[in-house]
Amino acid sequence: MTYKIAILGASGYTGAELVRLIATHPGIEIAALAANSKAGQAMGAVFPHLRHLDLPDLVTIGEIDFTGIDLCFCALPHKTSQEVIAGLPRDLRIVDLSADFRLRDPADYEKWYGNAHAAPGLQNEAVYGLTEFYRDEIAAARLVAGTGCNAATGQYMLRPLIAAGVIDLDEIILDLKCGVSGAGRSLKENLLHAELSEGYHAYAVGGTHRHLGEFDQEFSALAGRPVQVQFTPHLIPANRGILATGYVRGEAGAIHEALAAAYDGEPFIEVLPMGDAPSTRHVRGSNFCHVGVVPDRRAGRTIVIAALDNLTKGSSGQALQNANLMLSLPETTGLMLAPVFP
Amino acid sequence: MTYKIAILGASGYTGAELVRLIATHPGIEIAALAANSKAGQAMGAVFPHLRHLDLPDLVTIGEIDFTGIDLCFCALPHKTSQEVIAGLPRDLRIVDLSADFRLRDPADYEKWYGNAHAAPGLQNEAVYGLTEFYRDEIAAARLVAGTGCNAATGQYMLRPLIAAGVIDLDEIILDLKCGVSGAGRSLKENLLHAELSEGYHAYAVGGTHRHLGEFDQEFSALAGRPVQVQFTPHLIPANRGILATGYVRGEAGAIHEALAAAYDGEPFIEVLPMGDAPSTRHVRGSNFCHVGVVPDRRAGRTIVIAALDNLTKGSSGQALQNANLMLSLPETTGLMLAPVFP
Amino acid sequence: MTYKIAILGASGYTGAELVRLIATHPGIEIAALAANSKAGQAMGAVFPHLRHLDLPDLVTIGEIDFTGIDLCFCALPHKTSQEVIAGLPRDLRIVDLSADFRLRDPADYEKWYGNAHAAPGLQNEAVYGLTEFYRDEIAAARLVAGTGCNAATGQYMLRPLIAAGVIDLDEIILDLKCGVSGAGRSLKENLLHAELSEGYHAYAVGGTHRHLGEFDQEFSALAGRPVQVQFTPHLIPANRGILATGYVRGEAGAIHEALAAAYDGEPFIEVLPMGDAPSTRHVRGSNFCHVGVVPDRRAGRTIVIAALDNLTKGSSGQALQNANLMLSLPETTGLMLAPVFP
Amino acid sequence: MTYKIAILGASGYTGAELVRLIATHPGIEIAALAANSKAGQAMGAVFPHLRHLDLPDLVTIGEIDFTGIDLCFCALPHKTSQEVIAGLPRDLRIVDLSADFRLRDPADYEKWYGNAHAAPGLQNEAVYGLTEFYRDEIAAARLVAGTGCNAATGQYMLRPLIAAGVIDLDEIILDLKCGVSGAGRSLKENLLHAELSEGYHAYAVGGTHRHLGEFDQEFSALAGRPVQVQFTPHLIPANRGILATGYVRGEAGAIHEALAAAYDGEPFIEVLPMGDAPSTRHVRGSNFCHVGVVPDRRAGRTIVIAALDNLTKGSSGQALQNANLMLSLPETTGLMLAPVFP
Repeated sequence: MTYKIAILGASGYTGAELVRLIATHPGIEIAALAANSKAGQAMGAVFPHLRHLDLPDLVTIGEIDFTGIDLCFCALPHKTSQEVIAGLPRDLRIVDLSADFRLRDPADYEKWYGNAHAAPGLQNEAVYGLTEFYRDEIAAARLVAGTGCNAATGQYMLRPLIAAGVIDLDEIILDLKCGVSGAGRSLKENLLHAELSEGYHAYAVGGTHRHLGEFDQEFSALAGRPVQVQFTPHLIPANRGILATGYVRGEAGAIHEALAAAYDGEPFIEVLPMGDAPSTRHVRGSNFCHVGVVPDRRAGRTIVIAALDNLTKGSSGQALQNANLMLSLPETTGLMLAPVFP
Repeated sequence: MTYKIAILGASGYTGAELVRLIATHPGIEIAALAANSKAGQAMGAVFPHLRHLDLPDLVTIGEIDFTGIDLCFCALPHKTSQEVIAGLPRDLRIVDLSADFRLRDPADYEKWYGNAHAAPGLQNEAVYGLTEFYRDEIAAARLVAGTGCNAATGQYMLRPLIAAGVIDLDEIILDLKCGVSGAGRSLKENLLHAELSEGYHAYAVGGTHRHLGEFDQEFSALAGRPVQVQFTPHLIPANRGILATGYVRGEAGAIHEALAAAYDGEPFIEVLPMGDAPSTRHVRGSNFCHVGVVPDRRAGRTIVIAALDNLTKGSSGQALQNANLMLSLPETTGLMLAPVFP
Repeated sequence: MTYKIAILGASGYTGAELVRLIATHPGIEIAALAANSKAGQAMGAVFPHLRHLDLPDLVTIGEIDFTGIDLCFCALPHKTSQEVIAGLPRDLRIVDLSADFRLRDPADYEKWYGNAHAAPGLQNEAVYGLTEFYRDEIAAARLVAGTGCNAATGQYMLRPLIAAGVIDLDEIILDLKCGVSGAGRSLKENLLHAELSEGYHAYAVGGTHRHLGEFDQEFSALAGRPVQVQFTPHLIPANRGILATGYVRGEAGAIHEALAAAYDGEPFIEVLPMGDAPSTRHVRGSNFCHVGVVPDRRAGRTIVIAALDNLTKGSSGQALQNANLMLSLPETTGLMLAPVFP
Repeated sequence: MTYKIAILGASGYTGAELVRLIATHPGIEIAALAANSKAGQAMGAVFPHLRHLDLPDLVTIGEIDFTGIDLCFCALPHKTSQEVIAGLPRDLRIVDLSADFRLRDPADYEKWYGNAHAAPGLQNEAVYGLTEFYRDEIAAARLVAGTGCNAATGQYMLRPLIAAGVIDLDEIILDLKCGVSGAGRSLKENLLHAELSEGYHAYAVGGTHRHLGEFDQEFSALAGRPVQVQFTPHLIPANRGILATGYVRGEAGAIHEALAAAYDGEPFIEVLPMGDAPSTRHVRGSNFCHVGVVPDRRAGRTIVIAALDNLTKGSSGQALQNANLMLSLPETTGLMLAPVFP
């Protein structure tokens, strides 16, 4: 049996990445592609790398007949997403890739995003989409909220450590380096090639990046007490990839064991041998996440590092993994593509 | 049924690319991986992007038991390849990715490569591996010689034009731009990141690049008379991709028609609408080749442009496509991966 | 004595490059910087790499008092430039970096730029700014029109050959590869890092690029008969640099001699030894242009290659070289900065 | 008066960078260039970007007559440098760019570099070359030891804070991102373009990088007690640039004040306004260092960030700045080149 899906926001990078992954997925068929600003165009005109595929033309969201659609991916900008989803059929399975349903508390949402939520009822219903930690809830959910790509990376390295009680919860520093595609296809001067290439910098310094809302929510819930990490993202001149370097207090041995135990049997999370550090180039284009642990020269301090592809495991790959669960398909279907190196 | 294959030269980029592609191929299993210089190591140690795969460790070529191996890929340096293949079982199906069996005439081989061929008998047996033009011979072959990546690109744009008689055979100029991975993983000063990044240049200028041997052989055979193109490759600061810009004499309409007719029904060759120019970014990581045609402002002159990924369609993807034919598998098996963009 | 200059359009890349070069120029002082869209800001806020300099704040063009200004650089978009310059004092020396005064014939201007010229009288007065070939006229000029960056590159390789009569005027092909900064700081989807990085393509294929207007004008005037070259620019993922590969008919020896003779004693044009090919990385950030000659394997055909930095020799460096002449300063003042490699 | 200098190790990146800077230095003339492995070649053949300069050919070190040489730059690999310098005239002024004379304690040297020092007497004589903090000693020195490029970056941000007592000495984390040229021109697989481009990773994780020897020595001496920072370098796909992100405990206001006070009047160190973060692209190719301070959301925690160009301020620019002092030339001579952006 083949499930029919729709993608709203198909003219952005996460939309295109969904199409790329689904192109070789044996159980899913793309029935509709929406992109209001480019409605009427062929997908191959907007994204020529997809021109070999037999895809429906882009339409407006309003033109889609959701009858017969088994699941809908929303790859829309945040704020738009909540408004659109509020208007979709109530029985339609939805995987949202925006930030709109990640924070359970409407006050948290408003604090980090600056506006009151337009669909607080739905926010309540949404399941947080970090597959490995919410697998059963996701399988049973109607609406799944894809995580932030940085938030996913940080959680893959830290959740098992918080859960196992092997690190000091008050001394967690995350220095994160992300590629350019995480910023999307929007027209901003600081995203031009001539501005970015051959240079790098920190941004949202000092605890102002919105993905901190997810860290605070998830880590505090997991610890049963408030946890606030320090978090500084940096923009690196590469298209894909997130590398998160975590500075924690705890014994490297216990930390490595906690990670190995947590991810034993997980198809997409690879815990490297003690002392090895991962690289973004080794996960590029794939749904894999590599995690490494190295003890510091100062006793009781450990460096934990995670690498993933922001567009795949950090966004569209995660979304497809969740969709597989929601459709009762094997979780890894269509996602075992090996990384592209060099 | 699953076929067992071996890869000799698995520690180079084309070897790793074969593993990447075969990782999701349903009918082929990797039974042996050889790399003399790195024998004893795990493949995941040499190429960490493949660490999630359950692969045999690297061995020396001599350690492989070829009994039960259905097909062997040779991704060895040229010259080494002919010596190794001369020693392999005579009934073993082989896809060679080196330059050793591309030129049929031993004198041509010696002219371009500077040494007498060590296995002229095998050279005679080998079938030239440009799938779309040697499909039947490849399906029946024991030994297939993978083409040069530049040679493949130039032939995809020019063969149909020569065959259809729509261009002047004496006035063909190929200005080619290739990515860095085409030079392989060898340690050369001019391949260092600091040397290459942010700069570009022509090399092998004036008709000295070895892939000209293939152009001369194939185009002359096709035309039934000597054809010598002008060919200048340029090294571009990108990892994957070949873009060939061809300057030819002929009417753009006839040229476009000849290409469209030649590739009608071909799964991997996309002829763009008249006036469109292809880009390497739209074929990256895939087995697709995009070809475009644009008339020049001066009547009777036309620009033809082709783009492909040197490691995939230009090398390892082509090799797998040929292996599929040789094993009577559907030709596209494992090769429909969509390009990775951005 | 120190001359006072103004820069109009100081918030673009060529404006910033002028400031970079003038920063260590001993005879010129920046008295005013205009950028209407960013008026009121400090230059160091718009271009933090210039923050160590003591510069006037950005103002609107209307706010500048041109009394006491010895020379004005106009780094404005084309069309805007002609309107602004029409309103400047008639005795103000001007170096224009836009396309507005490059084409002497108003009909040519309209053909290539699509609008009637707003200041045809000034167009008549303007001297074409290719320093090495218009040196005396530039020194005496009030208004100098900076050349297109691609147009400069092509002319450096071809003018001496046309002048010496050593090539076939009807068989000139220019395959040009340019870096990203040539497109300026404008917000276009195809200039985003995620779109450009790791990919390359041809654009304005078939003879539609506006710099062809300059080639046609200059080469025809030089030859005393119409000359139309074939010209295809390609966009390369690097910030600075133009590499032009020319395919011509003529003997390499005569061609090399003509270039060597033409540039003997020229401070910025380096003719490489016969057989050497230049690279953009070896002129980056400098006012130098490297030119190489290689004979093809086919007798009577030669490849000529030129490399320069589009922002320096192709634009702002050229402008400063011309300004030096107009102000009777030594021509190389402030311009002997060595290229930045790696 | 013009001073004559020699450069030993002129075929590496720091040697070439010295030549680039000295090319426009009015008081220094290059009298000799040595590179044993490339002796006999023209500098313009080894580094074509320098071909416009009138430079002496490369010779072996033994061929140089040091009579009449006022100062010698040693840009040799560590270990080689100490052996060579031991054999140079005892009255020759030397600026060493290697690691050989940075650590005052021979035991420290042996601990970090793995071999006993071959010239411990000279080690004693050497002055640490961090100009802004050892200015008087450098001016009076015969032998100056250039700092590590990472070590310079970290010290520019931290020394004023340690000296002013405004941060907790036991809680300093330095997460550093460096460009590729810092690794030099050596042939290593992991420095190939195809390996590095589009990916990034941490290396020397856990406190094993040799520049920690400098941090330990300098910070402990400054504090009057042992100080051990945590330090993780990352390799970024860009050629030039170091960005160091420091996580410290202390009030942002006091930290910003300490930095502003320390660098008031310094020609090359720019302290950004509170809350601004520097970028490597804004110091590229220059001798400037930008330092920024941002308070964290958690009280008492502050992020300090510094950016410089590893080949200029981190190495060859620093060396020239020190040479100016040693030769009683104005310290900034030849070093006010503005950064190259884009």
